[in-house]
Amino acid sequence: MSLNFCFIGAGNLATHLANALFFKGHRIVQVYSRTADSARELAKKVDAEFTNRTDDVTVYADVYFITIKDSAFDEVLPKIAFNNRLVVHCAGSVRMAELESFSGNFGVFYPLQTFSKQRRVDFKNVPVFVEANNHANEQMLLDIAAGISGKVALLDSESRERLHIAAVFACNFVNHFYHLAGNILDSTSVDFDVLRPLILETAQKVQTFEPENVQTGPAVRFDKNIISQHLAKLSDTPEYQKLYETISKSIFDHQKK
Amino acid sequence: MSLNFCFIGAGNLATHLANALFFKGHRIVQVYSRTADSARELAKKVDAEFTNRTDDVTVYADVYFITIKDSAFDEVLPKIAFNNRLVVHCAGSVRMAELESFSGNFGVFYPLQTFSKQRRVDFKNVPVFVEANNHANEQMLLDIAAGISGKVALLDSESRERLHIAAVFACNFVNHFYHLAGNILDSTSVDFDVLRPLILETAQKVQTFEPENVQTGPAVRFDKNIISQHLAKLSDTPEYQKLYETISKSIFDHQKK
Repeated sequence: MSLNFCFIGAGNLATHLANALFFKGHRIVQVYSRTADSARELAKKVDAEFTNRTDDVTVYADVYFITIKDSAFDEVLPKIAFNNRLVVHCAGSVRMAELESFSGNFGVFYPLQTFSKQRRVDFKNVPVFVEANNHANEQMLLDIAAGISGKVALLDSESRERLHIAAVFACNFVNHFYHLAGNILDSTSVDFDVLRPLILETAQKVQTFEPENVQTGPAVRFDKNIISQHLAKLSDTPEYQKLYETISKSIFDHQKK
Repeated sequence: MSLNFCFIGAGNLATHLANALFFKGHRIVQVYSRTADSARELAKKVDAEFTNRTDDVTVYADVYFITIKDSAFDEVLPKIAFNNRLVVHCAGSVRMAELESFSGNFGVFYPLQTFSKQRRVDFKNVPVFVEANNHANEQMLLDIAAGISGKVALLDSESRERLHIAAVFACNFVNHFYHLAGNILDSTSVDFDVLRPLILETAQKVQTFEPENVQTGPAVRFDKNIISQHLAKLSDTPEYQKLYETISKSIFDHQKK
């Protein structure tokens, strides 16, 4: 099965998804982006045409992947003639029904991963969650997903939003703590680099174990001396002090249950 | 150079460190723990004797590794006759000077990693930070460290404490967010397992990039719609709602700078 796809949006997710579909043998007909340069850059990689004009968007795609920012949906989508073709968005927290006014065939194709342009991602390991307005479209999206990913499932909008929130905790918040940890080292001779093996081992550990069973550190030991010593040390940076206190308490409270 | 070591404590860190030293060709003379079973278990792995009596602790070790909880130092250490041998602790946030009263030769040997008994850790990738009361002891600890780790440095007590706090942010707090993310999925059909590739990629990304350059998600995009939607969704779990709000704000604030 080889299909024709059009990408509305040319950001990180579009780049990774279009590449994965292209290398699977599908055709990327066209890439649209409000920025011609972005559209051109992605189009070149996947042998596609590109445009930055909504009225030039192709009418010949089997599936349109909407990968622009959620907040730009209402500005961009009404200007495109989808001719009742299958229109799917890739957002964690936008309900499928929001596409209803743009086409009679619509759905969601949500790959759960953090995509940065600089990093290659093996789509085989990216779970993809699918939803569609009818069984035929559902099956089509499941087939497309199964072609590039080893982990595919149906998921409704309500659960997908929860999954997106969980991903914010497990990825965006985690990455922010990496950043804060680096900042804490600023006054020392030690570089962020020394934290890298620790960061990797912490993530690798939960690939086989449950996080609550492998927690370490002063909070889970309820080591009051060390905790108060750390809080005192952070007194010149109240933001870090407050975070330290809040999260240590949360670790302890969850431990008790 | 083959040395004789005694371990005071038989927990996760002792297990990993004693193993690494043993496989490097050093001799572990004895393992002491207040719990005979723990002492026996580790002693067996590294071909050592064991005891749970402080007055039976060997007087023939070149270096004594103190790996018991910081809070137990004052209870256990005064009961042991160290005979002026080199006594080192492995704690992030205990000042070296706290060992002064137990021996004329003292220092710190701090491996920066999260150790769980169930996980094998390759010590080659574990940064070790060393401090000692004089140059000769410093050099001895640097040599021991360099035998098992590819990354060894001198670090004073003040900086080591900061490094420990950074590690709490980068490891313990991060692991807690993995746990919270799993809890958020409890009401859905989706299992913690789907988060694993995301967790791993988030950690792998910062092995080469700086965290602030690869942040993704609603907070760094300042996507107010999604953020308020997520906060509303978390209204039945105020703890998660508060954490979501606090950390999203922190991501946004750090972005502005």
